[in-house]
Amino acid sequence: MAEPKRKRGLFVYFFAQNEADGCRAMRNLLGGKGANLAEMARLGIRVPPGFTITTEVCSYFAQHRSYPKSLSGEISHNLQRLEAAVGKKFGNADNPLLLSVRSGARISMPGMMDTVLNLGLSDTAVRGLAKQTDDERCAYDAYRRLIQMFGNVVLGLGGRKFEELIEKKKAVRGVKEDIDLTAEDLKDLVDRFKELIAKERGADFPQDAFRQLDMAKDAVFASWNNRRAINYRRIHKIREQWGTAVNVQSMVFGNMGEDSGTGVGFTRNPATGERGIYGEYLLNAQGEDVVAGIRTPRPLPLLKEDMSGVYEELVSVAQRLEEHYRDVQDFEFTIEKGVLYLLQTRAGKRTIQAAVRVATDMVEEKLISKEEALRRVEPAQLDQLLHRRLDPREKFEVIAEGLPASPGAATGEVVFTADRAVELATDGRKVILVRRETSPEDIHGMAAAEAILTSRGGMTSHAAVVARGMGKCCIAGCEAIKVDEEKGKFEVNGLILKEGDLITLDGSTGKVIKGVVHTVEPVPGDDFRRLMKWADEVRTLGVRANADTPEDARIARELGAEGIGLCRTEHMFFGEDRLPHVQRMILAEDPEEREKALKILEPMQRQDFKKILKEMEGLPVIIRLLDPPLHEFLPNHEELMLEINDLKLKAADEKLIEEKERLLHRVESLREMNPMLGHRGCRLGVTFPEVYMMQTRAVFEAAAELISQKREIYPEIMIPLVAHERELSILRNEMEDLIDEIMEEKGVSFEYKIGTMIELPRAALCADRIAAVADFFSFGTNDLTQTTFGFSRDDAEGKFLPIYIKKKILDDDPFEVIDQEGVGELIRIGTRKGRQAKENLEIGICGEHGGEPSSVKFCHGVGMDYVSCSPYRVPIARLAAAHAKLEEEEAGQRKQ
Amino acid sequence: MAEPKRKRGLFVYFFAQNEADGCRAMRNLLGGKGANLAEMARLGIRVPPGFTITTEVCSYFAQHRSYPKSLSGEISHNLQRLEAAVGKKFGNADNPLLLSVRSGARISMPGMMDTVLNLGLSDTAVRGLAKQTDDERCAYDAYRRLIQMFGNVVLGLGGRKFEELIEKKKAVRGVKEDIDLTAEDLKDLVDRFKELIAKERGADFPQDAFRQLDMAKDAVFASWNNRRAINYRRIHKIREQWGTAVNVQSMVFGNMGEDSGTGVGFTRNPATGERGIYGEYLLNAQGEDVVAGIRTPRPLPLLKEDMSGVYEELVSVAQRLEEHYRDVQDFEFTIEKGVLYLLQTRAGKRTIQAAVRVATDMVEEKLISKEEALRRVEPAQLDQLLHRRLDPREKFEVIAEGLPASPGAATGEVVFTADRAVELATDGRKVILVRRETSPEDIHGMAAAEAILTSRGGMTSHAAVVARGMGKCCIAGCEAIKVDEEKGKFEVNGLILKEGDLITLDGSTGKVIKGVVHTVEPVPGDDFRRLMKWADEVRTLGVRANADTPEDARIARELGAEGIGLCRTEHMFFGEDRLPHVQRMILAEDPEEREKALKILEPMQRQDFKKILKEMEGLPVIIRLLDPPLHEFLPNHEELMLEINDLKLKAADEKLIEEKERLLHRVESLREMNPMLGHRGCRLGVTFPEVYMMQTRAVFEAAAELISQKREIYPEIMIPLVAHERELSILRNEMEDLIDEIMEEKGVSFEYKIGTMIELPRAALCADRIAAVADFFSFGTNDLTQTTFGFSRDDAEGKFLPIYIKKKILDDDPFEVIDQEGVGELIRIGTRKGRQAKENLEIGICGEHGGEPSSVKFCHGVGMDYVSCSPYRVPIARLAAAHAKLEEEEAGQRKQ
Repeated sequence: MAEPKRKRGLFVYFFAQNEADGCRAMRNLLGGKGANLAEMARLGIRVPPGFTITTEVCSYFAQHRSYPKSLSGEISHNLQRLEAAVGKKFGNADNPLLLSVRSGARISMPGMMDTVLNLGLSDTAVRGLAKQTDDERCAYDAYRRLIQMFGNVVLGLGGRKFEELIEKKKAVRGVKEDIDLTAEDLKDLVDRFKELIAKERGADFPQDAFRQLDMAKDAVFASWNNRRAINYRRIHKIREQWGTAVNVQSMVFGNMGEDSGTGVGFTRNPATGERGIYGEYLLNAQGEDVVAGIRTPRPLPLLKEDMSGVYEELVSVAQRLEEHYRDVQDFEFTIEKGVLYLLQTRAGKRTIQAAVRVATDMVEEKLISKEEALRRVEPAQLDQLLHRRLDPREKFEVIAEGLPASPGAATGEVVFTADRAVELATDGRKVILVRRETSPEDIHGMAAAEAILTSRGGMTSHAAVVARGMGKCCIAGCEAIKVDEEKGKFEVNGLILKEGDLITLDGSTGKVIKGVVHTVEPVPGDDFRRLMKWADEVRTLGVRANADTPEDARIARELGAEGIGLCRTEHMFFGEDRLPHVQRMILAEDPEEREKALKILEPMQRQDFKKILKEMEGLPVIIRLLDPPLHEFLPNHEELMLEINDLKLKAADEKLIEEKERLLHRVESLREMNPMLGHRGCRLGVTFPEVYMMQTRAVFEAAAELISQKREIYPEIMIPLVAHERELSILRNEMEDLIDEIMEEKGVSFEYKIGTMIELPRAALCADRIAAVADFFSFGTNDLTQTTFGFSRDDAEGKFLPIYIKKKILDDDPFEVIDQEGVGELIRIGTRKGRQAKENLEIGICGEHGGEPSSVKFCHGVGMDYVSCSPYRVPIARLAAAHAKLEEEEAGQRKQ
Repeated sequence: MAEPKRKRGLFVYFFAQNEADGCRAMRNLLGGKGANLAEMARLGIRVPPGFTITTEVCSYFAQHRSYPKSLSGEISHNLQRLEAAVGKKFGNADNPLLLSVRSGARISMPGMMDTVLNLGLSDTAVRGLAKQTDDERCAYDAYRRLIQMFGNVVLGLGGRKFEELIEKKKAVRGVKEDIDLTAEDLKDLVDRFKELIAKERGADFPQDAFRQLDMAKDAVFASWNNRRAINYRRIHKIREQWGTAVNVQSMVFGNMGEDSGTGVGFTRNPATGERGIYGEYLLNAQGEDVVAGIRTPRPLPLLKEDMSGVYEELVSVAQRLEEHYRDVQDFEFTIEKGVLYLLQTRAGKRTIQAAVRVATDMVEEKLISKEEALRRVEPAQLDQLLHRRLDPREKFEVIAEGLPASPGAATGEVVFTADRAVELATDGRKVILVRRETSPEDIHGMAAAEAILTSRGGMTSHAAVVARGMGKCCIAGCEAIKVDEEKGKFEVNGLILKEGDLITLDGSTGKVIKGVVHTVEPVPGDDFRRLMKWADEVRTLGVRANADTPEDARIARELGAEGIGLCRTEHMFFGEDRLPHVQRMILAEDPEEREKALKILEPMQRQDFKKILKEMEGLPVIIRLLDPPLHEFLPNHEELMLEINDLKLKAADEKLIEEKERLLHRVESLREMNPMLGHRGCRLGVTFPEVYMMQTRAVFEAAAELISQKREIYPEIMIPLVAHERELSILRNEMEDLIDEIMEEKGVSFEYKIGTMIELPRAALCADRIAAVADFFSFGTNDLTQTTFGFSRDDAEGKFLPIYIKKKILDDDPFEVIDQEGVGELIRIGTRKGRQAKENLEIGICGEHGGEPSSVKFCHGVGMDYVSCSPYRVPIARLAAAHAKLEEEEAGQRKQ
């Protein structure tokens, strides 16, 4: 079947087995669900026939507050095609065609928008259906579901009132499950439901099928703009103007007895990537029963026992889908009286573990190319793969086990509501959200929590799907725990845990643990290493790490770092054995006294550098000289003041007071209004040259020693906070003299570099002049973002920045994602001017953005030589750099 | 006489009456003195013949540590020309030619470099001279002066040792003045001087004239790099590589009796600009006697009585010079036995009052064009003209009167040494330097002091000349006061004043006053107004003022401001009647409580704006909404903490403590690490919209009221600290709604503008997007400088900035003079992008740079519409803008 073409002005696209107006390529127009239903129909896979109203209609409505004129005609026409395909009549009392109306956006927004099922039933049609199917109970159950959904979704009554009526009925009838209600019970419920609607809305439930369809369609389109959907779009960066399509489809029923059923599946295991069909099903159930997690479903392989023919067909369809889509598919199906219908297929969401495994496996299976495999893995998700897991040497008390719904490990305080999770997280506390089950209303709490634990639902329950999407640890269906959300506690085997109690989850095994368990780094597998190797083959951007300790350096190297892009030296000053000397150095009244303290610090620093340089043998190591203002190493001014005040009031020893006052005076003289913009970075180097000279001596003596031992060592010195080229040239001259001296002393001679951070707007703007005296540039995008925006990160993040993001003044936190318009412009200017002055100037980035995929792509685009990021982000950067290169090539090909 | 041409490779330029190798155009080559001596010679004015060794020789020596090979030959050759012109022989015993050797740089550096006089005298030549002049005393006096100067300047012995020998001699001889020493005394002194040299330097004073000349030349060239000269160059931005020329000239003697004399003069009064020759002379004296201020000289008109012919000649020469140079000349002359010689002429330094008067007078006299008149006045100096003077209504005690050497008025603590002046000034104290006389060693103290008072010296003494150059108030020659610098006090009519006592000087009248006298604004004269009018005719750049009060607005308007470019509103919040409400507003727990406080503030603000708008009727008024962080309006955090601590220790009332703690808590929650980069500016507007809305309401209600009264009012709202266009568009939308509402309420409709400050790098970089939602830009270069450099002004100025300027990392304080490379680049980018997006976007500057001449020129160059500066700087900006336009036109003409 040839791929159909999009027709301009056509608003409704029909599909039935082997017949479709649309295809998968029309995703933007038909939404993901609609496009894939059409595609499956084209492939000859059995789907319930139906038609898709395009996303253009949604956008049209948003703009004009009315529908295109031709729409209602098109719907009528396609209803007729549908009736013909199914052999039933919509609104007919004897042979009624029942329809579902579902949303379906370009990008899946699970559970965010509305659905109405069983449209076409009425007081008369329900009787026709009962007669036709010879199942009165089933027919009335369908009718009550229609009224309930219609009341909730279309009339906005809220589901709870209907549920209450059902609960009441069950109580009166003395039964526990819905399934135990008889046809008569359901008939009665239908009447009560209709009464409820008439009472609450002052109008009867519409008996006209066409009116039902019309109202349901309106409601589903309108659900594009409900609060949940808007929130979801904001979090996932889905554009409002894309709109949703609406799928109108003939109903099939999985609840027509034990030869019926419904389920969801994956063509491979979405948690591990293991080959083979994977999923869950329920016999004699409607689709929402699986997703809602109310009944615990059976694993798919068991279907082989229940209905072996259907199982074989399902396996074959799954294989067909995967081969066709060349990716793991997440599908929904319904079996109606032994006949299998596919309701949906889409690329299966998977854990990063699964993504890596599937991608590499599929290359082996020759389904996809290496480049495609790289594209299939989201760099940001690698983070999860590399995230810590429970320390295997730790002993801990497992209090329960649930489904390993989303891997990772996390410790936190138990909370029971989404709002409370947000509240505590805002205070900087780590929380674990514990719920019976989650719903779209809980999204904000899930985002705030470290991990999620539910007592109900399976691997495809709301909690599980959303947590995997967020890359959060999640344990679902942990039935052993009894959650009482109202009382704020849960019980497990007699143990009671309340809000604030600490638990640890291991999302990879499903273990729930009492208390805190230490975690260790992950050990990535062979598939990960293979993928990373491919990434390295593709990428042209270098990847280094920010590492301040030999331990960090080792991890960075293991994770593929090609050098250290930033080794901060200030942390070395905070050591217990060092701080007193650092303070003495700062408090020194004259250069001589300062030199004395520095003489003690120097051998310590030398050892620090020696270890790091050795760890990175053969690779460049950029060491940044002292950056923070000196008062950071002294006692806090206020505390000292209060202490002195106290001492005085207590009439303490005069000498002690005097000494403290001297200290206070010094702290005062170093105190600054705006330390971020104060006496720090190279300004210290210029005004207290002894400190930088000590550090330079330490670096080069360490390097000289190692080089004497025939090791390959590449030390590089980085001067922070340069605003004017003369700062750098003055310091460089002093250092070069010292380095010459050391080389002569030690009798060695080796290459080294002296460069600078570009972290002030002025430095970027005057990069040509600075490049003349620098061997390399490293963009310090943390500070550069602060000064370009005039945002103090410390102040902004707790105060106005969250409001700015909420009000959409900023799309992202600029401290996480490079602001390409402003900060990026300075990077472009700095790179251009720097290279103009020195063609082969080495340029990198060492801000936290260096490990954020979109920022890495940006860095590749401006022509940097490398990015440098924290060790665990090195694989992310490697993959993101490969993506950037692939995208660049694609763009190049498109242009040709 | 045709203007001579510069000859490449020629290092010595000869001059004698009606004969000269050089001319005034060769100033860079011959130095100012040398070029003007050549020029006077060409004009036929009698000068002592001589020759100039070029500045190239100085530069050559600095580079090669040796002289050009041809130099000594050229000197010999020109010595012969000189001998021929004078009819004497250098080094000859019977008819000795005596020479002076003087420095002379491109730009005059009075007293900074060295001079040696009477070269050519020796033990034998002094006798020849005595015989030839028939004046043994005079000959030996010349000889002892030579040895003294040579010992000091060439041999580096220091003048004090020679002076001590003279004092001793006078004491032994029982005389008071040098003049009372006889020839024998002087002979004896010559011997003692020679002994001193032999003893201290282990070598005799050289008897060979040529060796004397050689050594003196070397010493004068070397004096280009003495400490004084280096300091002076740094202060006056004179380049080191320019070098000095050396002038070798035949001596003439003003001390050959009562028909001889020496003096200095101006072609017009340099303090007031009054027409007519002005100056001082001494009969029977050498030139340095006048400058040193040891004998108090006579005013020039008295020379008419002493030597009427010479006086007439001098007046005629002065007129000739002024007509030729078309500018006020400052000249030196010597009369040797009734014959007048001009020793020097140069453009006369003048007070700004004189500069303005001379410039406007000369236009009237048709000597110069209006454009030339504008060029003749330094914009920066207008500041002085507009500076405050003593309040005429004040009563005060005049304790002495001296010469009104440099106008202005100042109050300060008395100090007696330059070092002490610097010390106290560094502590932020205002000091007045009181000295017997000043010398080049005192420059740093003069720069630090508010004003200078000397007991000796005339209008052209060191103190007077330097103070005028610095634009500082100075009273010289105040003989009534007896200064005892060692004991740190001065006495005047029995009254003793010590260090730290307060005095006030009125430099325009010469009055010295005890205590503090209030000062008032100056009333500029007609000539000033005329000049300003011409400036306005020339300039194309607008000039507005920064004014926060009606009073400032009035002054600004009087001084020519064409609108208000910045009206800050935060000061209005600090009023005693307002602060409590402002604090209530800040401490409010919810928007309702905040609104209540704002309702009280609103009518007060409305009155503020009404007054200012009224004052500026017909002109635009840009009102900037609240900018500083809110905690600036609350008590200081530390003080509050200490207070609570105290209260607790004293077991004070629980309720009081609780209340204070609540306040502390709020202050704490508002406190910031880096307030400069914190929650301020439009970030307040976005997060607490009530404040900006209150201010907008106040502005537009005020405007509406005035407009209802048929007044022409142009209110403009400026939003500070915009980093992203959406901040502005959100606020703009809210404001426009409110303004529409107010206009409807008040039944008026009028034009207004809403614009923004460009004071963050990001705003400049994204100016195109911001321009789309802004009616105007105003570059806030104070904040822009802070963020571009990453310098907190508060922290930098007290800490590393002075070191940066001293180490020449920065040429200027970037908070005074726009950093054209960095900050300027952002201004260029912002202007270009802003205009790209909106062709007619109004662009100005309102940082403090708006009144700094070189920055004004920059603003003109980038195409701004206006600069805005503090009211008193408005005339400076007007003139600087005219200069910028004139320079642009000149540059354009040069290109054609």
